[in-house]
Amino acid sequence: MSSDRITLKDIAKKLGVSPSTVSRALKGNPEIGEDTVKSVLKLAEELNYRPNTLAMSLRSKKTYTIGVIVPEIVHYFFSSVISGIEFVAYDSNYQVILCQSNELYRQEVMNLKTLEQSQVDGVLMSFAKETRDFGHIEEVRSKGIPVVFYDRSFAGINIDSVLVDDIGGAYEATDHLIKMGCRKIVHFNGPLHLEIHAARRNGYVDALKYHNLPIIEELIIEADSFKRAYKFTLRMLEEGVDFDAIFAVNDLTAVGAMKALKSKGLRIPQDVAVVGFGNDSTLSEMVDPSLSSVMQPGFDMGKEATNLLLNKINEKIHQEPVQIRLKTKLKVRKSSQRL
Amino acid sequence: MSSDRITLKDIAKKLGVSPSTVSRALKGNPEIGEDTVKSVLKLAEELNYRPNTLAMSLRSKKTYTIGVIVPEIVHYFFSSVISGIEFVAYDSNYQVILCQSNELYRQEVMNLKTLEQSQVDGVLMSFAKETRDFGHIEEVRSKGIPVVFYDRSFAGINIDSVLVDDIGGAYEATDHLIKMGCRKIVHFNGPLHLEIHAARRNGYVDALKYHNLPIIEELIIEADSFKRAYKFTLRMLEEGVDFDAIFAVNDLTAVGAMKALKSKGLRIPQDVAVVGFGNDSTLSEMVDPSLSSVMQPGFDMGKEATNLLLNKINEKIHQEPVQIRLKTKLKVRKSSQRL
Repeated sequence: MSSDRITLKDIAKKLGVSPSTVSRALKGNPEIGEDTVKSVLKLAEELNYRPNTLAMSLRSKKTYTIGVIVPEIVHYFFSSVISGIEFVAYDSNYQVILCQSNELYRQEVMNLKTLEQSQVDGVLMSFAKETRDFGHIEEVRSKGIPVVFYDRSFAGINIDSVLVDDIGGAYEATDHLIKMGCRKIVHFNGPLHLEIHAARRNGYVDALKYHNLPIIEELIIEADSFKRAYKFTLRMLEEGVDFDAIFAVNDLTAVGAMKALKSKGLRIPQDVAVVGFGNDSTLSEMVDPSLSSVMQPGFDMGKEATNLLLNKINEKIHQEPVQIRLKTKLKVRKSSQRL
Repeated sequence: MSSDRITLKDIAKKLGVSPSTVSRALKGNPEIGEDTVKSVLKLAEELNYRPNTLAMSLRSKKTYTIGVIVPEIVHYFFSSVISGIEFVAYDSNYQVILCQSNELYRQEVMNLKTLEQSQVDGVLMSFAKETRDFGHIEEVRSKGIPVVFYDRSFAGINIDSVLVDDIGGAYEATDHLIKMGCRKIVHFNGPLHLEIHAARRNGYVDALKYHNLPIIEELIIEADSFKRAYKFTLRMLEEGVDFDAIFAVNDLTAVGAMKALKSKGLRIPQDVAVVGFGNDSTLSEMVDPSLSSVMQPGFDMGKEATNLLLNKINEKIHQEPVQIRLKTKLKVRKSSQRL
C-alpha cells in the first residue's frame, strides 16, 4: 500500500472516528482525548504518512504568512528577534505580519483574533506581562493554527518555546564582577513575580554563593528603569551605602546608574564597576565609558522559533513540545574592566 | 427623492456607464477617465450621497483592520508613529497589523501583497529608501484599498501624506546655535538625493544666510551614523579644522560626535555645542551632557495619518489629496546651553 494514497478518511474509518477528529488529534488539539490521540498517532505512523501529504490534507488553504505578536516593538531586543524571524521566514517564502500587544492582555486577545482573521498559517508570540491565562492561545490552536512562544513562556503550558538562559547570563555577569575584585555588588532588578526577573536574581545569588560571598538584601533593589536606577543610586550614595559594583537587569537601568555615579564624581569602573543585560550594542558602545553587558541572542531566538513554527505548519507527526534555552554571552567593555 | 434610496446603479444608469465604473470613479481609480470621474462626482454630489451609504455599497466586506508598512521598526521614531496610529485606530475599533520593508523595494511590494491578502481596509506606509516608482501602490489603490503616506512621500504622487517640517526644524536648530554664540557650525548629514536630507541641509543654510554667516562647504559632511560621526569628528580635530558647534541630522550621529569630542578632552557645550534631530527623549537624557534635539512629532504623525486614512475608508466624496506638515520643536538641553 503506497503511503501517497492514504487519506485522513482511511485512518478515521479504521479507528471508527470522524476525519475531523483524526485531523485534530494529529495537531494535538487538547479537546481530543489522550487515548484517541495515541491511536491516531500510532496508526498514522504505521501507515507511513508523509508530512507534506498530511499538511496538504489538513489545511485547506495556506497563505504562507506568519503572524507575530510583540509586546513592545520599541525595544531593540524584540526588533532583533523580528529580524531573525524574517530571516528564516523569507528564506522559506513565508511573509511576516506583526501585531503589538503593548503588554496588555485584552490587546493580545484582539491581536490573536486579527491574525486568525488574516488567515496566518501560524503564530509566534511573546505574551504580555499582564497575561495570566492562555485560553485565547488554546482557542487559536484548536482551530489548527500552531503557536510557538519566544522569550517568555508559561510554566504550565505545553507549547514549544525559545527562551534565553537568564540564570546563566546573570551568573556570568556576577562572576565576572567578582573576578574583577568586586565584593559588594548591587543588583537592580524588576518585580520578582516575573520569571525573567526571578531567574536573573537566582543567577546573581548563585554566583555570590559559589564565591562564598554573603547575600546582602540591602543591595538587591527593585529598579528596572533608567529613572529609578538614577534615583536609587543617588540615594545609596547619599545614605553612605557601601558598594563597589552594580549588576543591572537591563542596559537602560545600568546607564541610569552610571549617570548618577558620574554626577557624584565616582569613577567607572575604578570606584564602581557596572554590568547590564541587553543586546543593543549601539547603546552599550555609545555611553561613556562603554557598558559591559550580557548579550541576548535575539536574532537567533527569532530564527529558532521560526524553524519550530515552520516544522509545526508542515506538520511532523511526532511532536513533543520543545523548550530551547539559548545561551547568552558576556561582552566585557570598559565599565567593568579593572586592570 | 430620499438620498438613502440612491444606489450606485442609479448613478450608473443616469450616466450610461456600469456601476463598477461609478464605484471606481468615486475612489479616484486612475483607470477611469477624468471626464467620467467629474460627471460621477458631480451627480453624486447633486443626489446628496451620504458617505456611510457609499462606504457600505462600495466595500463588500470590512475587516476593521489597518495595515501599516514600516521601513525599520528598530527606530524609536517609527515606534512612536505606530503608537499614534494605534491610539486612533483602537479608538475607532480598528485593529492594526504591521509589516517591515527593511528599506527594500522588493520587500515593500511583498508587504503590500500580504496586506491585501490579509484584507486590510486601508494602508499607512512610509516607503523604503530604495523605492523609486509607485506602480505597486497604484495597484493596491486600484483595488479600492486607500493608502496614506507618513514621514516620506514622493513629489509626483497624488496621495495624502503627513510629513515633518524638516526645513523648519533644521532652521530652528541652527538659529539656536548661532544665538548661543556659535559661528562655525559643522553639519553632519545623509546623502542629499533623499528629500529629508536635502530639506535639513536647506534649513541649516537658510539660518546661516539669515544671520549673514558664510556657508563653509568644508563643514558640511556626509555622516549620518554614530560610527561615521565619531570618525569624522576625530579627523576634523586631528586636521585642526576650526569649528565651535555641530548640528547632526539625527541623534545617534550627534552622540557619536560627542563621544569623539569628549575623548579629546573638549568640553560640551563650552568648546563645541551639539544639537541633534530625533524624538527619543530617553536617549537624549541618557547621554552626558544631555543632548539638545529637534523633536519630531512621531505620535501626532501617526494620529493624523490614521485620521486621514479612516476618512478615506469611510469614503467622503470630495477628496483632494492633502499634505500635512507637522511642526517640530527644539528641546534645548545641556549640550548646547551656553550661559
